[in-house]
Amino acid sequence: MAKPNVREQLLEAGLRVLSTQGFNGTSVQDITDAASVPKGSFYNHFESKEALGAEVVRRYLDQASARQAALRDPAVAPIVRLRRHFEELAQGVEGREFCGGCLLGNFAAEMSEQSEMIRTGVCDAFASWATKMTETVAEAQAAGEISTAIAPDALAAFLLNSWEGAQIRARAEKSRVPMQQFLDITFGKVLAP
Amino acid sequence: MAKPNVREQLLEAGLRVLSTQGFNGTSVQDITDAASVPKGSFYNHFESKEALGAEVVRRYLDQASARQAALRDPAVAPIVRLRRHFEELAQGVEGREFCGGCLLGNFAAEMSEQSEMIRTGVCDAFASWATKMTETVAEAQAAGEISTAIAPDALAAFLLNSWEGAQIRARAEKSRVPMQQFLDITFGKVLAP
Repeated sequence: MAKPNVREQLLEAGLRVLSTQGFNGTSVQDITDAASVPKGSFYNHFESKEALGAEVVRRYLDQASARQAALRDPAVAPIVRLRRHFEELAQGVEGREFCGGCLLGNFAAEMSEQSEMIRTGVCDAFASWATKMTETVAEAQAAGEISTAIAPDALAAFLLNSWEGAQIRARAEKSRVPMQQFLDITFGKVLAP
Repeated sequence: MAKPNVREQLLEAGLRVLSTQGFNGTSVQDITDAASVPKGSFYNHFESKEALGAEVVRRYLDQASARQAALRDPAVAPIVRLRRHFEELAQGVEGREFCGGCLLGNFAAEMSEQSEMIRTGVCDAFASWATKMTETVAEAQAAGEISTAIAPDALAAFLLNSWEGAQIRARAEKSRVPMQQFLDITFGKVLAP
């Protein structure tokens, strides 16, 4: 019988290692080493590295959901919630010294042609995030904070995708600048009333 | 003495295979197989897979430069040049059935922590593209086609990075929608006068 805490350790280590080394750059042994568990224990818990990868995407979404909950805080103006959300994400990328970035964007870039299991997991996670952001955008529109000219779901998708591009460029450049340009132009122009 | 046409074949095959399988998902043998050359010939032409990867980034930029030249066509209004540029890129991604996408974005996501040689090559290629786009944005501003409120280099970087995010999402979703949202919001709002 597999011990649940070994599974936990594998998922946490998997999230860490896959975020910086990518899927194909990570071996099962890299994950068991990072989790400090015997290599042989891996297959007691996961059928394959791909199965762990898909589970790691769900875990990433669970952890992100805590941050995304702030998008719904009724005590804060919707436009402020949106700005804080992206500022927190940018601080996270900078705080990790531009290593790793967003697992969803990384996997979308690396794995879209290679694993249906991971691709659909990534799409589900993006959809979940986009739904929350769409609600906040709609609230900001209802409050007259931003223009209603663009449908909230399209605007939320644009923000989310533009953010992904900005953080990937920030990682390549090892610089905050692309993320700052995203913040300045998003809140100065895209979301201007 | 290495035959130049084998080197050529390796670079063309490398570009093709690395674009869809990623760097770590591609073996030297995948590249020699795709190039229909003996595996042993690889190291007559390249010191390592990494060296070929960096050379493939330069080749990708050379091929992209032909498309980017249209950004400078004085016979076409600057804003129209920008729109056509991104529409052509979107058609390319759709035409390839969402396989592969932009090698620069893929390598930025996969390799920023793993190869300085590839990372700096990707940054150089982005910078070259951004420079051309900045000139077109500045022309569009000078012509009164778009607002001058945002510096042309920041605006060009935002467009380029947002495009990268949109095409990565399009690949994950296997759908044109993220790229269409990028086009609609970029030309309907971000670049509105």
